[in-house]
Amino acid sequence: MSLSDLLNPASVAVFGASQNPEKIGGRPIRFMKEHGFRGRIYPINPARESVQDLTCYPDLDALPEVPTVAIIAVAKERVMDTLRLCAERGVKGCVVMASGFGEVDEAGRADEAEMREISARTGMRIVGPNSQGLANFNSGAILSFSTMFVEEPPTPGPIACISQSGAMSVVPYGMLRQRGIPVGHCHATGNDADVTVSELAAEVVLDPEVKLCILYLETLRDPENLALAARRAKERGVPIIALKSGRSPDGQRAAASHTGAIATEDRVIDAFLERHGIWRAEGTEALVHAAELYLQGWQPKGRRMAVVSNSGATCVLTADAVDRYGLELAQFTAETEEQVRQVLPDFAASRNPVDITAALLSDSGLFGKVLPRVGEDAGVDILMIGIPVSGKGYDFERFAQDTADFVAAYGKPVVLAAPQVSVRAAFARHGIPSFETEDGAVRALAQFVDHLAMMARAAGGVPLRGGLCDGGATLDEFASLDRVAAKGVKVPLRMICQTEEEAQDFLARCPGGVVLKANSPAIPHKSEHGLVRVGLRTPQEVSRHFDEIAAKVAELDVPFEGVLAAEMLGGGRELVVGGHLDPIFGPVVVIGDGGVAVEAMPDNRLLLPPFSEGEVESALAGLRIGPLFRGVRGAKPLNARAVYEAARGVAELLVDGGAVSVDINPLIATSEGATAADALLEVRR
Amino acid sequence: MSLSDLLNPASVAVFGASQNPEKIGGRPIRFMKEHGFRGRIYPINPARESVQDLTCYPDLDALPEVPTVAIIAVAKERVMDTLRLCAERGVKGCVVMASGFGEVDEAGRADEAEMREISARTGMRIVGPNSQGLANFNSGAILSFSTMFVEEPPTPGPIACISQSGAMSVVPYGMLRQRGIPVGHCHATGNDADVTVSELAAEVVLDPEVKLCILYLETLRDPENLALAARRAKERGVPIIALKSGRSPDGQRAAASHTGAIATEDRVIDAFLERHGIWRAEGTEALVHAAELYLQGWQPKGRRMAVVSNSGATCVLTADAVDRYGLELAQFTAETEEQVRQVLPDFAASRNPVDITAALLSDSGLFGKVLPRVGEDAGVDILMIGIPVSGKGYDFERFAQDTADFVAAYGKPVVLAAPQVSVRAAFARHGIPSFETEDGAVRALAQFVDHLAMMARAAGGVPLRGGLCDGGATLDEFASLDRVAAKGVKVPLRMICQTEEEAQDFLARCPGGVVLKANSPAIPHKSEHGLVRVGLRTPQEVSRHFDEIAAKVAELDVPFEGVLAAEMLGGGRELVVGGHLDPIFGPVVVIGDGGVAVEAMPDNRLLLPPFSEGEVESALAGLRIGPLFRGVRGAKPLNARAVYEAARGVAELLVDGGAVSVDINPLIATSEGATAADALLEVRR
Repeated sequence: MSLSDLLNPASVAVFGASQNPEKIGGRPIRFMKEHGFRGRIYPINPARESVQDLTCYPDLDALPEVPTVAIIAVAKERVMDTLRLCAERGVKGCVVMASGFGEVDEAGRADEAEMREISARTGMRIVGPNSQGLANFNSGAILSFSTMFVEEPPTPGPIACISQSGAMSVVPYGMLRQRGIPVGHCHATGNDADVTVSELAAEVVLDPEVKLCILYLETLRDPENLALAARRAKERGVPIIALKSGRSPDGQRAAASHTGAIATEDRVIDAFLERHGIWRAEGTEALVHAAELYLQGWQPKGRRMAVVSNSGATCVLTADAVDRYGLELAQFTAETEEQVRQVLPDFAASRNPVDITAALLSDSGLFGKVLPRVGEDAGVDILMIGIPVSGKGYDFERFAQDTADFVAAYGKPVVLAAPQVSVRAAFARHGIPSFETEDGAVRALAQFVDHLAMMARAAGGVPLRGGLCDGGATLDEFASLDRVAAKGVKVPLRMICQTEEEAQDFLARCPGGVVLKANSPAIPHKSEHGLVRVGLRTPQEVSRHFDEIAAKVAELDVPFEGVLAAEMLGGGRELVVGGHLDPIFGPVVVIGDGGVAVEAMPDNRLLLPPFSEGEVESALAGLRIGPLFRGVRGAKPLNARAVYEAARGVAELLVDGGAVSVDINPLIATSEGATAADALLEVRR
Repeated sequence: MSLSDLLNPASVAVFGASQNPEKIGGRPIRFMKEHGFRGRIYPINPARESVQDLTCYPDLDALPEVPTVAIIAVAKERVMDTLRLCAERGVKGCVVMASGFGEVDEAGRADEAEMREISARTGMRIVGPNSQGLANFNSGAILSFSTMFVEEPPTPGPIACISQSGAMSVVPYGMLRQRGIPVGHCHATGNDADVTVSELAAEVVLDPEVKLCILYLETLRDPENLALAARRAKERGVPIIALKSGRSPDGQRAAASHTGAIATEDRVIDAFLERHGIWRAEGTEALVHAAELYLQGWQPKGRRMAVVSNSGATCVLTADAVDRYGLELAQFTAETEEQVRQVLPDFAASRNPVDITAALLSDSGLFGKVLPRVGEDAGVDILMIGIPVSGKGYDFERFAQDTADFVAAYGKPVVLAAPQVSVRAAFARHGIPSFETEDGAVRALAQFVDHLAMMARAAGGVPLRGGLCDGGATLDEFASLDRVAAKGVKVPLRMICQTEEEAQDFLARCPGGVVLKANSPAIPHKSEHGLVRVGLRTPQEVSRHFDEIAAKVAELDVPFEGVLAAEMLGGGRELVVGGHLDPIFGPVVVIGDGGVAVEAMPDNRLLLPPFSEGEVESALAGLRIGPLFRGVRGAKPLNARAVYEAARGVAELLVDGGAVSVDINPLIATSEGATAADALLEVRR
């Protein structure tokens, strides 16, 4: 069933309805009456004739109709019976507020399983339990008991906040409201026994009023729903910002004790969100920081920023912030510079950043003279106005009007940085997003520009399923390289030698020499046991090292399964390409710097299959060793295509090749190609 | 002369005194009268009998005494005459407000040179020109015309803001005042012709009222004064936070056009500030963000943080923030956990972070019951209280009181994170620093703890002088290695060979083979020209490569000065140790990862001599390749002492060895030691 009925019900029944508008069973009724709910409200309470001036009913069957949705504000003990009854009568959705279910004990988890069963069988969707409720201020359907809507009264608006946690649904709501920004949705789904945050988000982004969706996630069990939400959001041009907590090990432990979240390597979440164009916020403030910019309908053409300020210090600080947040300082054309120079005093700076100086005090029209010149310059995509000092003698109403005229004429995004509340208020009246500092203003602009670009390039797609991530059987190196080679990855010439003679014969086929290694899946870390001997060029060397390896294997009490001889590879850079199955997100591929650095000095990126060659190229470019793929000090660039092919091979092994983990380390990369010098596979038993 | 008279004058004359308190010559008089200046004020204006109800004098000689200081609020053209007169009459300090001097033209720079000359000759100190003025609210001596003191009225207090830029003196002032924090000093020194920001800071930190000093720097021409300020500040326990702009290339360009700042590599500033215990803020907000924490007199014992909140989500988010900002989540003792468990409901978390849950609604005493248990735990150094949801039904006055009791009983630093203004206000009334989000609260605590630790370990000292940084003579590799070896750095066996035969003879002394290189200071980047040949083991190889090098040198049209033959070094990690003379800060030493990575993938740290072995160790530990000095995958750790010795050698070459730049790249490091495989020196001509 669609969740639309939960957001826009024609009628709402309230089990446990209370006359007291401060009680859990009373507050939703009060909110709906106060905030324009246009449907019918049916309080249910056998002890009362009326509730908050509405007719009160003794039970569900006494209502004049089957309600679209029901708020279940009764004690925990009566929740399951009430749900069963609602499902039987054809109610389309319920919100369960009581806590004490899956978050507490096994009996609670069994109840939640039954909720899912009821939903699957009857189509009645259940929000909660342990839910603070859903609040759609755009329809007035406020099925929520949050006190925050008393503290910071709601008004319909373009932002939706969705969270499991009650606190983290109303915290961004409250912060936005304190900044004067309207919020249209504020939902807290609780334990997500049936309806999840992600599924609800996929419904909410369809609301034509919604222009920005803010999510707080502690668990992410249904990436397919979040991917659906992202797809719909992209179609509608609605950006999604998500705060996924539990990034740190301590945070994961705290989340596990809070919600029983399953641990997924956090960087997999990064990769998933990026792929679906969802911006990941690092903290609560970052959820709301740039919100206003998303509401303007701006489509920045690029990241080249102009700065106009009445303070040279602000110009310098803003240039630093532009660098810090990865924007670019626009370069004016000679014509623009000349025109700016003509309207400014001699000692002012006409280049970007433009310091119009304290001359603003004697000519309040300076912004109005400079801004059109900046607007006309095709090399300027975005603008920051900085007014660090103002007050008496400064006509900041006029500055705000001149800035608003710039926006109207050129459609280029503009933000203000001004520490004084009075200045910000004037610009806010003209709809210009305002920040206390240049750092905050530039950070917001950078997020906005980067997020829209990320959405535009988001590959999206339906996520692969999670799967088995341990318990596989380890293959030996020879077999592992066979599997890798079967997927088109280049591997060295090699053979398993049972005798010294075989190894010496093999040497004859390898003009560059050979490497000998113990061949046993029981010894995954061969080099730490001294079981890898490289650069052997004579039959004598081969013979001696063969003997030593065999003796060492015997010493380790591992069955001798021969010695792997392989041709020596020429020079190249040691990379790593590998992957594993994540329990939630399925196949995950890693590419990066290899050799000794892999664990101690990690430099790698994760990719979610299927990925394109372009995605691999940009992941490689983003590595610390990225310059090696562009060529360093006259050396030829490493071959990115060969790394892509290896990564694609690893992905295929994980997606349908029976592998649960793959580790090619090192993959020796040169400008010509890349060869797997060692590989280790775990496969499904 | 001490600058104390400028901050605490017995009398102040005002040249260009105005009846209008909104004019530059009127505002200082108004401010001093309104904000309790206890000295004598002498307006000077030949056109008036009285100014703002004070007797007005026609000229300096008409005053009843020689004033301690004079505010020069006259037109630019009359500034120099007025200064000469003041100096002659024995005025001790002047503040020059007019602009149009060194920032504009050569004549202005000549005037500024004369100001320095007057100061040096007569002892009369000059602030400015182009100065917004000095404002000491602790003495009432407000020699400033800033409108900000009208917008946000001052009150005496423990924070000092000092800046060249007028805007950046009052921006932090205004932000602090808007947060209700008193500011005792707000100084804008302008062009710093005589008195600099740093010298003034060294005076201001002596004010017994001052507990925190905030600096904005665009140029730093007198590091010795900043070092003095830092030394005095450390003695008095006054932390200094500095925002040095121009970190980015664009910022440096903007600063150069704004102030004519000399470019110093920005990381040298980092190294200097760290050495002197000065915290570097990244932006305006960061200057004031943690200010309140510094005013409490707290002395945190460590960085282990406890978290108590009524929201599980806040617990998770705070754990993430603790990780993000490098603090540690405290581990409670079993006893603490048990005691916390006893006072909390069953479903609450008694481990750190402590989620006291919505049970707070039914028991407002929960904070008061939990906090003493946390206070008693010796494993807890600092605390954050998180109250993301509150409002009606929450007794947050009591929560604030319980928190204040905790501070009084245990002296452990505490911050609050709460998005609602009403909650923060209640805690603020009890003196608890409050932040909107957990991210902001943890960031402030981390800065505070890290800054005090940085101050405690600051080596300080008197900075070396800046010096010549280019125009030196380049030595060839052989001579460079000689100089390096003379400072105790290990170098390979080597000789200059004029003939193949000499090279072949040299090979006989090197059982591990030799490397041949062109030996010419005219070819600094030998390997890019194919003029380095490694791993030569036979006389035939030596002969062939000798010929090829000689031919290639001839081809490059460079005089043949022999071929440098050196013994091949065994394996090891390629590091770089080098250094140069900075025009402001003098000798700067760099240590880090070497080889191909040096420019394209930089991983290095700067050090200012003299440095200790411990400083080098901690710089190495902070590198990306830091793990190599602890040992990776069972390999022996690289020898940090040998790197220290090489760095010390480089420092000696720069400090008194006649070198202007040194580049040892690579320094081949092993667990045994380190050898300079190549070196390049520039020396004073």
